[in-house]
Amino acid sequence: MTDAFALDPQLERDTLPICDLALSAVRLMNDSRYPWLILVPRRANVSEVIDLTSNDQHLLLDETSRVAEALRTACTPKKLNIAAIGNIVAQLHVHVVARFADDGAWPQPVWGVGTAVPYGDAAATAFIDTITRALGQR
Amino acid sequence: MTDAFALDPQLERDTLPICDLALSAVRLMNDSRYPWLILVPRRANVSEVIDLTSNDQHLLLDETSRVAEALRTACTPKKLNIAAIGNIVAQLHVHVVARFADDGAWPQPVWGVGTAVPYGDAAATAFIDTITRALGQR
Repeated sequence: MTDAFALDPQLERDTLPICDLALSAVRLMNDSRYPWLILVPRRANVSEVIDLTSNDQHLLLDETSRVAEALRTACTPKKLNIAAIGNIVAQLHVHVVARFADDGAWPQPVWGVGTAVPYGDAAATAFIDTITRALGQR
Repeated sequence: MTDAFALDPQLERDTLPICDLALSAVRLMNDSRYPWLILVPRRANVSEVIDLTSNDQHLLLDETSRVAEALRTACTPKKLNIAAIGNIVAQLHVHVVARFADDGAWPQPVWGVGTAVPYGDAAATAFIDTITRALGQR
């Protein structure tokens, strides 16, 4: 345990960077089966939303809503799934997943279903660019 | 679609009432396999957190955190799982689930895993009482 934030190694392996908001790093889950973003608050040693300060909780909510709006704008999903689970990777991270009635897991959640299908380089770059623009970060 | 809030019939069947907070009805998922609460904001025709007003989003966050604190106090879980999914029941509801390394679904999420095991009457009453007290509602 240190006082400095560092991205969890498994999150680093499983995701690609998009941008940093005031509190959270926004990253793309490298799984082309679902449009799937995560927010990682840059706070050290926090696993639970309720262990953030109240101010950080509200900032995380605002950033999560902003990411959800961007994903909805980019993808027009049937439903958004938003969750803080963290049973496997303890570092606090919030999932925002765009779901469709014809995706492979519908209507079940996506976590633990099958195996990730990584994006090709061009597809990842294009989707990251789309989300970055929808977030107003470029 | 009406302008009046009414609890979704499936949520009514699957859960037991605990108490009403300023925005949300707090209910117990009638599944004794996991300590599992839900919050249902009493707003008509809302499926996504981002379709609540900003004020209601922040109120829902505060109530979710309060419920999560109460559940943690009552159960001392290894991890809290907090999620707004809604692929099956569209009415906006937030899950707060206390997870343990020896529960039947660990480390996977609980949604869509196996079949609910309803509480007996005495166990339900006792747990509802515990949560109500932890929420400071009695």
